[in-house]
Amino acid sequence: MKPYIAYSKQELTFELENVKSLYKIYSDLRLSLDLTRGKPSPEQLDLSNDMLKLSPNETLTMDGVDVRNYGVLGGLPSTKALFASLLQVEPQNIFVGGNASLQLMYDLIAKAYTHGLANSHQPWSKEKTVKFLCPSPGYDRHFHLSLSFSMELIPIRMNADGPDIEQIREHISDPTVKGIWCVPKFSNPDGITYSTQVCEALSSLRPAADDFVLMWDNAYCVHPVYCDETIPNILELCEKNGNPDMPYMFMSTSKVTFAGNGISAVASSERNIEYLKKLTGYQTIGYSKVNEYLHVRFLKDRENVLSHMQRHADILRPKFDIVLDSLKREIEPLNIAEWRRPNGGYFVSFYAMPHTASRIVALCREVGLKLTPAGATYPYNTDPMDSNIRIAPSYPSVEELKMAMEVFCVCTRYATLEKLLDLQ
Amino acid sequence: MKPYIAYSKQELTFELENVKSLYKIYSDLRLSLDLTRGKPSPEQLDLSNDMLKLSPNETLTMDGVDVRNYGVLGGLPSTKALFASLLQVEPQNIFVGGNASLQLMYDLIAKAYTHGLANSHQPWSKEKTVKFLCPSPGYDRHFHLSLSFSMELIPIRMNADGPDIEQIREHISDPTVKGIWCVPKFSNPDGITYSTQVCEALSSLRPAADDFVLMWDNAYCVHPVYCDETIPNILELCEKNGNPDMPYMFMSTSKVTFAGNGISAVASSERNIEYLKKLTGYQTIGYSKVNEYLHVRFLKDRENVLSHMQRHADILRPKFDIVLDSLKREIEPLNIAEWRRPNGGYFVSFYAMPHTASRIVALCREVGLKLTPAGATYPYNTDPMDSNIRIAPSYPSVEELKMAMEVFCVCTRYATLEKLLDLQ
Repeated sequence: MKPYIAYSKQELTFELENVKSLYKIYSDLRLSLDLTRGKPSPEQLDLSNDMLKLSPNETLTMDGVDVRNYGVLGGLPSTKALFASLLQVEPQNIFVGGNASLQLMYDLIAKAYTHGLANSHQPWSKEKTVKFLCPSPGYDRHFHLSLSFSMELIPIRMNADGPDIEQIREHISDPTVKGIWCVPKFSNPDGITYSTQVCEALSSLRPAADDFVLMWDNAYCVHPVYCDETIPNILELCEKNGNPDMPYMFMSTSKVTFAGNGISAVASSERNIEYLKKLTGYQTIGYSKVNEYLHVRFLKDRENVLSHMQRHADILRPKFDIVLDSLKREIEPLNIAEWRRPNGGYFVSFYAMPHTASRIVALCREVGLKLTPAGATYPYNTDPMDSNIRIAPSYPSVEELKMAMEVFCVCTRYATLEKLLDLQ
Repeated sequence: MKPYIAYSKQELTFELENVKSLYKIYSDLRLSLDLTRGKPSPEQLDLSNDMLKLSPNETLTMDGVDVRNYGVLGGLPSTKALFASLLQVEPQNIFVGGNASLQLMYDLIAKAYTHGLANSHQPWSKEKTVKFLCPSPGYDRHFHLSLSFSMELIPIRMNADGPDIEQIREHISDPTVKGIWCVPKFSNPDGITYSTQVCEALSSLRPAADDFVLMWDNAYCVHPVYCDETIPNILELCEKNGNPDMPYMFMSTSKVTFAGNGISAVASSERNIEYLKKLTGYQTIGYSKVNEYLHVRFLKDRENVLSHMQRHADILRPKFDIVLDSLKREIEPLNIAEWRRPNGGYFVSFYAMPHTASRIVALCREVGLKLTPAGATYPYNTDPMDSNIRIAPSYPSVEELKMAMEVFCVCTRYATLEKLLDLQ
């Protein structure tokens, strides 16, 4: 094997015929494989089955509260303490939500539109234009959430140490730029952990908008696969740098216990938490305290959560190995794509030769391998280079994943060869 | 005992001294009693403890779905079927939410503001004024929800058979009137069930606003205490009368299973449900299917829910008896107040002599009996007659409730005597 770039036109044509016959074999297998979403596997979910097992006559009481009844909006003291230890903030900085942190993020933005945030001069619905910074590639649901409110999305380049600070600084002098989406640790999809310098710079921004929000989606805060990485406490940094109300940190236990039945939290300044609690008081009498109870009883404390996450990592690691080994074996020698070996999180972010990602995804789909649509990781579903493909290895079995990666590599070669011949 | 109205000034003065000495006795007891909220008692919650008990090795699978994982926004087929049977609609008219129907109501109104409803010409946030009709007395949380969006609230008189249709018709020609709050069965607080005529009239309204919403909070749909009452299916009526997208029916199992950990649903036209599902797709990947699973497995079907609710009624009935017996014994002979004997729901709605309710509530509070603030059942917390007091007998024990009602009756006499002497 030599790099495709060194192939003659004849060699390329011949290789494409080879690859097409391989592709035909997969096509005949009538596969049904799925690498689309960052979903835990059943084996990972099994790790938390004991959470639902109650001892006979167990009283459903915590912190002196009957968790079955109404009340206690914003979290039981024990739940706040658990999240505070995981996010390394104080319990008074925590607001506990329902089964998904996405809902907390949506509701915060929705409240910004209907009521305004603590530092807003008026609700965002009264603004002619609202713009949001989107480090890209990023999490599609963040972008779709923003778009559903008709925000204008501004892509920000992702560097190896986090979003490009210079680009961010250029935009925040515009008062209609109201915030930025960040996944600061094991980012979706690149698996990048923001450096201390980037966090320091973000916390020191001087945005023209007084109610600029740092949406700090710490989705993978306790989710190493190969080894852990650390980020600074953004609440502390922002406070130190004169932006105490700017950051909102989000996390959930969706990828700790049950994806569909976790508990979520947002951490922010006491002022923001009080304001959020007041507004949420019109929306609900309280989220599920039964679920808080089950979680706190099962997860106990930070140390126990970290060991529990090691068991997740033990299941995820062989799957990441399959993806990375396949790419190293099948693609690296051809020098036709790039990717990062993440230390944690849920994804491998693959950069195909420019203008081939959509074709790769389409080729995969035709033989029964579903991938996240090309472009999904960019605002407006538009990857300017049509290059990035997010590979989510967690859900399939090891056998399915091996087959899926074989298919993926063949389709990558297929599309690349087509493109190279096209360019000749 | 004779009616206070027949007392001479001297008799009133003497009686007030009597009542004051009784009041002093309660004051010395340093009581801590609470009749404020419609909360189920621990004994009622115990009825559903088995819901959380899983058999060993039970698979958390329903309708072929692993309920622990992500997905299935809007409810599992089995959950939709259960709610459809309870609300007597079709499963395709159901959207299943989280642990509280209040959140579904709030989110619907919030989406009306940020995105508009299916029939809106523009989001409500773009309207200069939004007005909402509020049959009064009514549920304080409905009014507070509306006020949090700066709506203008218009009180509508409650008659014995439901809200006053003539008054409603006068207002709906105003296109800024966007909806009405209704608790059609065992209403909060009056315990009134809307008549067929009233439901027919509501379903045939011709509001000027195309996106006028009938917020049909069927909170007490399976909640008889003495005997059941029925209301027509408002979805069918509205469809028949040319308003298919007008009604949104809400219910939850908060007062069926666990107040803080129920499941909720909204029923509406298929068009509205599709629209709601699309918008909610930006907010969450799905509500808790584990909780749906636990509920469906425990509640089984309509018939089983109705028997389960009889067990609730068996616990509630003696408490309603205490309230009604106390009032009959202590207050009725004095002819100083009115109340309704509800057949179900959670409240007894007490109408004190005009301009005494706040004083009664204050007198109660001073001796350790908490009541819902006078006026809370009216828009802007303002009862024009300062007369209505909502009594919630469900939560206290029978002994506490007896004591609470003794205190309540004494305070009612106290305030009434003061008022009568004042008027002399």
